[in-house]
Amino acid sequence: MITLYHCQAARSFRPLWMLEELELHYELKMLPFPPRVFAKDYLAINPLGTIPFMIDGDTKMTESTGICHYLGTRYGPTPLTVDLSEPDYGAYLNWLFFSDATLTFPQTLVLRYGALEPADRRQPQVVEDYTKWFLGRLRAVETATGNAEWLCGGRFTAADIAIGYALRLADTIGLGQHFGPNVAAYWQRLQQRDGYRRAVQAEQSEATRQGVARGF
Amino acid sequence: MITLYHCQAARSFRPLWMLEELELHYELKMLPFPPRVFAKDYLAINPLGTIPFMIDGDTKMTESTGICHYLGTRYGPTPLTVDLSEPDYGAYLNWLFFSDATLTFPQTLVLRYGALEPADRRQPQVVEDYTKWFLGRLRAVETATGNAEWLCGGRFTAADIAIGYALRLADTIGLGQHFGPNVAAYWQRLQQRDGYRRAVQAEQSEATRQGVARGF
Repeated sequence: MITLYHCQAARSFRPLWMLEELELHYELKMLPFPPRVFAKDYLAINPLGTIPFMIDGDTKMTESTGICHYLGTRYGPTPLTVDLSEPDYGAYLNWLFFSDATLTFPQTLVLRYGALEPADRRQPQVVEDYTKWFLGRLRAVETATGNAEWLCGGRFTAADIAIGYALRLADTIGLGQHFGPNVAAYWQRLQQRDGYRRAVQAEQSEATRQGVARGF
Repeated sequence: MITLYHCQAARSFRPLWMLEELELHYELKMLPFPPRVFAKDYLAINPLGTIPFMIDGDTKMTESTGICHYLGTRYGPTPLTVDLSEPDYGAYLNWLFFSDATLTFPQTLVLRYGALEPADRRQPQVVEDYTKWFLGRLRAVETATGNAEWLCGGRFTAADIAIGYALRLADTIGLGQHFGPNVAAYWQRLQQRDGYRRAVQAEQSEATRQGVARGF
């Protein structure tokens, strides 16, 4: 049994969405956000206190996009991953790494210094700098989705899940209004996936069942 | 022929080191840092203006750790990657994703708001916040390198290159003084690798030959 620790709408949504697309059995453990503050017991499970945390037998992982690729290759073959033998293998890997290091981290700064920190520690300059930074990097997605329905491989893949979550986060924290037309249409397509909808349903129903408040 | 665009000591050092470990032929194109300011022609090659940029036939990639994994799998099999069939496959992937999203980005904030920005835009609070953040996450490396010489698979892999670069950056920007004893010893081991030394030699000799000043 695969176990996934998750906070609603946090980046652990990536592996949750991947699990739903793969139609794997899993146990979803909901945590309040941030768990290192509101669920201190969790530090005994993941000493970093970060989410996601995934356990699959002896394998333990903390990196949301890495878990998506792991699940697709471990429980594949599946069209959700792009194989070494395909022309878009490099592009696929690039989108995976781009999704978190380049598109998610700047948003965490916007969220932290614009909303989560107490008023005297907010940093409007940093919010502005990394809003620009995020939107500058997002141009790569605007270009790619002008040419094709999905990012690579001529089909929906884990790359779309990884980038799609970055768009979900942007929408959550108020950056969705700045999406270009291609990204806006792509984000609509992503939300229409059955797998996406099942993942949203799963986090909502489990948050209610487990009595865990929404994170941010 | 593989072409790699690189700024001295920047995260494009990861694929450079990987190329040296794999003993592949490549062309190294040195750029001043940051290229989007000091080498505007580069935007015609990589519209994001980021480095690295790697071209291998029709494959073009911008993500430093993703390129390492791409090269190892494309030009393997090699012991530098960990295969799906090995017990440490998930751990290997996790270190790859952890290296950039978790260990490199916080350092770019320390560098930007502590040194690169003009005095009136510096942000001591952000420098302090993300120094703590980086050192907190680095505990995972301190734990892992207390148990073993290398991070995963019982051997030196691309995961060590990816994390090793994050340590090099930390050393460059003054965070190396805070390394725990295991990380400090691991960083010494990494610098003794022939591949690491050849990569440092290559960036220095090419920077001189191509007349490109050091970046930061």
